[in-house]
Amino acid sequence: MKQIMRFPRLDRRALLSSLAMLPFLSAALRSTSAVAQTQTGPLPSWNEGPTKASIVDFVARVTESGGPYFVPPDQRIATFDNDGTLWIEQPMYVQLAFALDRVKVLAPMHPEWKDKQPFAAVLNGDLKAFAASGEKGVAELVAVTHAGMTTAEFEKIVIDWLATARDVRFKRPYTELVYQPMLELLAYLRANGFKTFIVSGGGIEFMRPWTETIYGVPPEQVVGSSIKTRYEMRDSTPVLFRLPEIDFIDDKSGKPIGINSHIGRRPIAAFGNSDGDLEMLQWATLGTSGARFGLIVHHTDAEREYAYDRQSHFGKLDVALDAAAVNRWTVVDMKKDWKRIFPFE
Amino acid sequence: MKQIMRFPRLDRRALLSSLAMLPFLSAALRSTSAVAQTQTGPLPSWNEGPTKASIVDFVARVTESGGPYFVPPDQRIATFDNDGTLWIEQPMYVQLAFALDRVKVLAPMHPEWKDKQPFAAVLNGDLKAFAASGEKGVAELVAVTHAGMTTAEFEKIVIDWLATARDVRFKRPYTELVYQPMLELLAYLRANGFKTFIVSGGGIEFMRPWTETIYGVPPEQVVGSSIKTRYEMRDSTPVLFRLPEIDFIDDKSGKPIGINSHIGRRPIAAFGNSDGDLEMLQWATLGTSGARFGLIVHHTDAEREYAYDRQSHFGKLDVALDAAAVNRWTVVDMKKDWKRIFPFE
Repeated sequence: MKQIMRFPRLDRRALLSSLAMLPFLSAALRSTSAVAQTQTGPLPSWNEGPTKASIVDFVARVTESGGPYFVPPDQRIATFDNDGTLWIEQPMYVQLAFALDRVKVLAPMHPEWKDKQPFAAVLNGDLKAFAASGEKGVAELVAVTHAGMTTAEFEKIVIDWLATARDVRFKRPYTELVYQPMLELLAYLRANGFKTFIVSGGGIEFMRPWTETIYGVPPEQVVGSSIKTRYEMRDSTPVLFRLPEIDFIDDKSGKPIGINSHIGRRPIAAFGNSDGDLEMLQWATLGTSGARFGLIVHHTDAEREYAYDRQSHFGKLDVALDAAAVNRWTVVDMKKDWKRIFPFE
Repeated sequence: MKQIMRFPRLDRRALLSSLAMLPFLSAALRSTSAVAQTQTGPLPSWNEGPTKASIVDFVARVTESGGPYFVPPDQRIATFDNDGTLWIEQPMYVQLAFALDRVKVLAPMHPEWKDKQPFAAVLNGDLKAFAASGEKGVAELVAVTHAGMTTAEFEKIVIDWLATARDVRFKRPYTELVYQPMLELLAYLRANGFKTFIVSGGGIEFMRPWTETIYGVPPEQVVGSSIKTRYEMRDSTPVLFRLPEIDFIDDKSGKPIGINSHIGRRPIAAFGNSDGDLEMLQWATLGTSGARFGLIVHHTDAEREYAYDRQSHFGKLDVALDAAAVNRWTVVDMKKDWKRIFPFE
């Protein structure tokens, strides 16, 4: 019977160090830096064309000292969605895969789950029945898989899961299923004085343990959905205990609110892939003067990754795709614009 | 009759630029940099002695490459309380002075306030009657003075107020009533690779318009109390509208929660001055390995500033002062340890 263990003295530094040691991560990082070293221009995994040109033109404008569109470095804020923008979100959100796996790990301690939804559905691998449990089911799933432990314990659980979990199609760790062109874009923006933030509907504490290693985005630059925590002293050691209560949903109109709360400035560039990113893209680009940049990753490559948009269960792209045309946001045609999808290719 | 104006296209960049132009701010900044240029060692406004030595020793330890207490730069997180730690908080919190002034500005639009508490008390300058209105009174005060406008409008209101408001005793703008030794400490930590954050019980949006200019702390490194906002599109322009509803109180046990939410790492150094900072100091220093630093500013100088602690209405320092002795946090004796209090001296 597996229990959630306590690691009262476990700190993020030790966790990140051990995370960095994991071979799969090292491989991903080597792969990235190898590209950076062997290519001369920026964005080597982007094919030449209007999409790449729109990025390079925007960066040239806002960094041109004395130019009409110059933006001082401290105001070069760029926000990135995560699921479907920086890493894979099919056949389901990675965090949902985590929660489903977690139910299986915890099931021996909860024999009653065999007859109780949504857990029975999860244990039977019946995603339709799980979906039928609706928001209440999701809330119960989050409560048992994401709450009831300290923040340090949860971090350890996430790191341990990522080290062993494998995507069903690519048979690889999820942290390898990140988009090489977007890694290059993050690095390119930072090299041009931008501060890069993640602004995701995903859980903030689910992302922070690995975003610095994988994306170069430190924990303080990650914005996401959250549950409430309670501060406690346990044997002279302070902990934050995760409660089964939603604190904030960083999706749709929650994204500008989360950006305002965490960053306190409007981004000048925003990157997303779904209707959940519409308001973030609006907040970054509309009703302000100066150069602004919005970009939507359109998943069009069923062969190398996936092709989905208006009808997708995860990462539905419908209203935001229409809005892109109106607002002159760049739309990435993954199949056409990306030379390479994943770092391991 | 003065109205709250809308500034739909007003952006933070323009505001900060105009803020930087204000003569009183330039004076404060010149004063600071003049000190930095004419003194050779760090912390010139700190008298020599164990207090200053404890700071310099800590910084030396965590920055000594290869040393037993070395901390990589990305983990050098330092959090600072604001009221009473970086700027003055007597005879009342600056933000309370702002709210009281704001009631007077808005009163002509609200004739009913003459007979309605807490507004009548505020308009009559009767702080005892205001205090008697309790939490309900404070909530009503916050609702009318801090909500009901967009975030950009509120920013403008704060900046305009700071430009004209004067402290009753020193007859100076509040942004000049910042502690010179703490400005030097912020700069000293940053020069040693630290990332400095403000973690204040004060309103996050009340601080962000000026913390970068005054403290060198950008908006994304400010954590504070907040009210809820609602995202809206107004004539194709996105705005965040401030609602009369508390979102988060960043005080006492709220401070570690706010730190976790915004920063996502535990600080290795924390700086405060009151019981409201106790949990932040615990979170930064207790139950972890490695060098950690806690500091409490004890207001002991009635002549140059104020002397207060266990009995004070604002910035009460009682439990945290006892905890400092137990936990070996440095206690600044303002009278003895600070050569100079304000930049204008």
